[in-house]
Amino acid sequence: MEEDHSRREGNGFEIEDDDKEHSVSMLREPFLVRNIKNNTSQIAIVGANTCPIESLDYEIADNELFKQDWRSRKKVEIYQYVVLKWTLALLIGLGTGLVGFFNNLAVENIAGFKLLLTNNLMLENKYYQAFATYAGCNVVLAIAAAALCAYVAPAAAGSGIPEVKAYLNGVDAPSILAPATLFVKIFGSIFGVAAGFVVGKEGPMVHTGACIASLLGQGGSRKDHLTWKWLRYFKNDRDRRDLVTCGSAAGVAAAFRAPVGGVLFALEEAASWWRSALLWRTFFTTAVVAVVLRGLIDFCRSGKCGLFGQGGLIMFGVNSRRAFYSTPDLLAVVFLGVIGGVFGSLYDYCVVKVLRTYSLINDAFPVPLTWPRNAQLKVAGNFKNFQCPPNHYNDLASLVFNTNDDAIRNLFTSGIEKEFHLSTLMVFFFAIYCLGIVTYGIPVPSGLFIPVILAGASYGRLIGTMLGPLSNLDAGPCALLGAASFLGGTMRMTVSLCVILLELTNDLLMLPLMMLVLLISKTVADCFNKGIYDQMVRMKGFPYMEAHAEPYMRHLVASDVVSGPLVSFSGIEKVGNLLHALRVKTGSGIMKSFKAHDFAKAGSGKGVKLEDLEITEEEMEMYVDLHPITNTSPYTVVDTMSLAKAAVLFRELGLRHLCVVPKTPGRPPIVGILTRHDFTPDHILGLYPHIKPHK
Amino acid sequence: MEEDHSRREGNGFEIEDDDKEHSVSMLREPFLVRNIKNNTSQIAIVGANTCPIESLDYEIADNELFKQDWRSRKKVEIYQYVVLKWTLALLIGLGTGLVGFFNNLAVENIAGFKLLLTNNLMLENKYYQAFATYAGCNVVLAIAAAALCAYVAPAAAGSGIPEVKAYLNGVDAPSILAPATLFVKIFGSIFGVAAGFVVGKEGPMVHTGACIASLLGQGGSRKDHLTWKWLRYFKNDRDRRDLVTCGSAAGVAAAFRAPVGGVLFALEEAASWWRSALLWRTFFTTAVVAVVLRGLIDFCRSGKCGLFGQGGLIMFGVNSRRAFYSTPDLLAVVFLGVIGGVFGSLYDYCVVKVLRTYSLINDAFPVPLTWPRNAQLKVAGNFKNFQCPPNHYNDLASLVFNTNDDAIRNLFTSGIEKEFHLSTLMVFFFAIYCLGIVTYGIPVPSGLFIPVILAGASYGRLIGTMLGPLSNLDAGPCALLGAASFLGGTMRMTVSLCVILLELTNDLLMLPLMMLVLLISKTVADCFNKGIYDQMVRMKGFPYMEAHAEPYMRHLVASDVVSGPLVSFSGIEKVGNLLHALRVKTGSGIMKSFKAHDFAKAGSGKGVKLEDLEITEEEMEMYVDLHPITNTSPYTVVDTMSLAKAAVLFRELGLRHLCVVPKTPGRPPIVGILTRHDFTPDHILGLYPHIKPHK
Repeated sequence: MEEDHSRREGNGFEIEDDDKEHSVSMLREPFLVRNIKNNTSQIAIVGANTCPIESLDYEIADNELFKQDWRSRKKVEIYQYVVLKWTLALLIGLGTGLVGFFNNLAVENIAGFKLLLTNNLMLENKYYQAFATYAGCNVVLAIAAAALCAYVAPAAAGSGIPEVKAYLNGVDAPSILAPATLFVKIFGSIFGVAAGFVVGKEGPMVHTGACIASLLGQGGSRKDHLTWKWLRYFKNDRDRRDLVTCGSAAGVAAAFRAPVGGVLFALEEAASWWRSALLWRTFFTTAVVAVVLRGLIDFCRSGKCGLFGQGGLIMFGVNSRRAFYSTPDLLAVVFLGVIGGVFGSLYDYCVVKVLRTYSLINDAFPVPLTWPRNAQLKVAGNFKNFQCPPNHYNDLASLVFNTNDDAIRNLFTSGIEKEFHLSTLMVFFFAIYCLGIVTYGIPVPSGLFIPVILAGASYGRLIGTMLGPLSNLDAGPCALLGAASFLGGTMRMTVSLCVILLELTNDLLMLPLMMLVLLISKTVADCFNKGIYDQMVRMKGFPYMEAHAEPYMRHLVASDVVSGPLVSFSGIEKVGNLLHALRVKTGSGIMKSFKAHDFAKAGSGKGVKLEDLEITEEEMEMYVDLHPITNTSPYTVVDTMSLAKAAVLFRELGLRHLCVVPKTPGRPPIVGILTRHDFTPDHILGLYPHIKPHK
Repeated sequence: MEEDHSRREGNGFEIEDDDKEHSVSMLREPFLVRNIKNNTSQIAIVGANTCPIESLDYEIADNELFKQDWRSRKKVEIYQYVVLKWTLALLIGLGTGLVGFFNNLAVENIAGFKLLLTNNLMLENKYYQAFATYAGCNVVLAIAAAALCAYVAPAAAGSGIPEVKAYLNGVDAPSILAPATLFVKIFGSIFGVAAGFVVGKEGPMVHTGACIASLLGQGGSRKDHLTWKWLRYFKNDRDRRDLVTCGSAAGVAAAFRAPVGGVLFALEEAASWWRSALLWRTFFTTAVVAVVLRGLIDFCRSGKCGLFGQGGLIMFGVNSRRAFYSTPDLLAVVFLGVIGGVFGSLYDYCVVKVLRTYSLINDAFPVPLTWPRNAQLKVAGNFKNFQCPPNHYNDLASLVFNTNDDAIRNLFTSGIEKEFHLSTLMVFFFAIYCLGIVTYGIPVPSGLFIPVILAGASYGRLIGTMLGPLSNLDAGPCALLGAASFLGGTMRMTVSLCVILLELTNDLLMLPLMMLVLLISKTVADCFNKGIYDQMVRMKGFPYMEAHAEPYMRHLVASDVVSGPLVSFSGIEKVGNLLHALRVKTGSGIMKSFKAHDFAKAGSGKGVKLEDLEITEEEMEMYVDLHPITNTSPYTVVDTMSLAKAAVLFRELGLRHLCVVPKTPGRPPIVGILTRHDFTPDHILGLYPHIKPHK
């Protein structure tokens, strides 16, 4: 070990051939995390408003400090790391489970109280007071949600799934995982759902879980010395990524009470990098969530939780009484799948259009206040049907005058004892479809799952009722298949949706039909456009790295897009030059001796700013030795490397910087550096307008 | 596009700086697939006997031929590719579904006939004839299975999961996916299971599915001109890897009638590289399997299939009547988990020990003929219990004198109507446990799942019966949890096992307990050793690349282990020199003009041999232009790159060769080439004996 180690150090101190690494190392220092090019060029919409974004770095900064720190680690420290890793997974599970339960409880109680109040007034035939109360409650709740979101944390708007997806792909937006975002995400979504918006609390739970995970791993900012010593192992993007993955899985698990579905959602939709060790840890986290939820639900059975929704660990029980399907059934399923695909892709198209419209006027404030009213008035419109004769009032009310969960439960129930009129289902479907589209854009934490399931279930039931005489399928299972088809058409997930729906409905006999309908709807929808989350990631401007390279990249080589020239330093450099290169007047406290954890990545948005440092004139004249903090083995490609292959390398290894070295000798040791930005289609097609991207 | 293209070609023809690529290209030519170093150093046990293995190559050979072929591809050809991709997935699903059904049918009928015959003889109190018949059938079937395996395709021995796992990691063994292997896998496993061995037909189904997939993609050997023109797109390791992944998923789906479980198995256990596009295609394949199975099973309900096993799409229905668990229940579950972990790891240890013993004497032929007899006689030992009083004879017979599937079904049944004596369960457990260990080594297609489930279920039921008064859990669910714990302890899978068991038993209310027991047993077992498949992959000598680098690799750099010097050629080289470098007397027909598909990777084991070519003396003096077949942008690392980071690069990109270039100028353009072999612990620790691997 030893002589080997010393030899490396010896190497490290040869000056003549180290320039390449220095330029790299300088760009990889934590106090350079905001490098100019990225800042100027990378702006994205996070939640409701725009802000600059960063690229995360999963490469091991292989410098002397890191090596020394790594060598000096004792066995006990490795155990500390492992113990802490699992403890954090446990805490994420506990926290997310509790929050999920709390959300559910709060919504059921607020909405329940509202509905009860209105109902009592109606029983006394005070229809106008009833309407006033109902509308009043909704407006107050809506304003509360929108105000929280607009004033406290705009990053909490929307479902947050695109943001989490982008983060797990290596795109870091300042406030996306901040405490304020978490707070608003929780209460904003409670108020929003209780206000009767056509939004779900499931999507936001994903973001909530991610926030909880990131905050737990962060412990607290280094500035305030809040952070705990053990947590230093998690001050890097790799471990934080794993935590956030667990968090998003826990979020889905808590939202749908679907532990396995949660793992698969994180795997299929959220995460960009995956390994089976992570699979196991995610599984553990969601298992904790399941245990927590089961315990709390059993506790609530004894009626200690006020108005708590029905359904145990299985939220929407469906029982398809017969396991055999005839040909007409299969035709009906195929038909459902196609419908779902068409409606789904249309839904995606409209949602993105609406979002784009909003994002233009989103800073102008009235928006959140106007939309809720319209949305809410539309709901109140259906509400007028209360003056109709009992039997017709009943079935529409059982959908509208109800929490979304209970509406879904009603739609999924089999048998004739709950019959819906075709007109009712049609009205309800179109109301939900349109409201879902316009509501998603408003700056309130809003999930897509529930609206989509509602709309899908209603047209599924519609078709099921119409086909009633022809087919063996009950209306209930048809509603389930409709929901599946619409989910497949909008979100384009397969395995995870399949498992989530299984865990929601506990009806394994429907599995083959559900797989069929999911595949058909996804295939049909994919003919028109991409999935909703992919479209939103693109629309919001996140530089998302696809797993595969674009075809036109085969025609280019690394040197065609590389950005240069670079600032490079000699091994022992004058502080003044460094600061000059950093383009600031004041300098950085580079004189004191460093430990590896001084270079630990700060939590998103935080970190030492150059402005926080002060350096005297004489210090400016002093020299600093850069070798210990130099990454001596960065990943490199030759400048003639096909851009497609460079992109694959960059993506697979989760790099932040990729050095391009010259193939021919006798040139400067490094041609330039490729960053995430250099691989974005906009950038490349901007440089080479003559390229036809879809050739 | 065009000027760009020509510019690249221009580059291609500068000679002075191309040496690096040539040496690389030469080593990457198809007629060099067998490169000497790998042959001499890489031998592994495939199935029952040893053979040399190859490394697969997932890097795009970015040479002019490839580029021209790629540019020349018309839109229609891209559609051809997509259509064919999905058609193949469909065919894999169909094929595997049919084979799985056929297996089941054959086993049920052969074994059923055997049992019926014996039973009738017993009813006439002809115990000795009955015994003779039973033993006779078993021996005949056993010999048939063993002979098939030993004479026709030794590669078909065992479950084949380690081989498939290694293949999907990039290790190619000649005959592992050959037609003969498929044939023996199917019939060997039918005879083996019907013979009453304690082996399952589920493991072999994974290998079967993989074979079907690979053969479908291959179409037929180029030599016999059997292959279909369209299939040329699939003549490369990347597409073949995807097909084999789909195949292994389909295998599990067909074996357990668990489509989602199949996808997850492929994802968690089999595959080393994954992307969500593949997830979707795998899902499609298993959906096809599910539909096929459902159809055939419905067909068999009408009794057209002779003796066909019970259970529809749900093989072993379990219903835990109560969804609430008290503390003692949870304690029981934890206890089960711990037991499962301990027994599981011990099981793994023994199985590997036994395999190692066998592998020493495996070429000596008697082995397959002796073991079956012993195994079978042990079974016959239990069989003697038939002379006991009715009630005691019944319950042991219902386990032993039965197909494994029915035995599991009996163990999983809830309620008191089927009661097992503790002594029975104990005897059965130990018999199965030991037989499972000794049987796995014999050269017969043999799966681990069923023995493990049997043993686990029996001790689960044992504990369930003992705890009867204390706990709310029925014996049936306890048996299920026992099976889960033992599976977790041996195979160390989490999500996939969980879903497979769910789909086997259709009891979602058990989910939290099942997750708990799986996590506990895996954690406990991991304290002792690695999972069975990992151990077997290592024991069989496959150079499996782990996703993470070994710690000691941080102390080394690329140049410490790189193998060199390399033979390098100039851009336009004399045929004689090439052949000399290839160290053969006869040459290769390199004079004719090539198309890209001439370099298509042949099916495993096949491909043009140097011996097949003839070249005259004068041809030896001629020159050949290597530029068009030169990979102009191979992946490279500098020689000072940390070996750990080089290993990550190598693994993540699925390379076969990684060029090491010098960091300091003025040295030959390439230091050497890293191959899979250079990253194997044995090789590295052989070079540096002083390294303590577990530091």
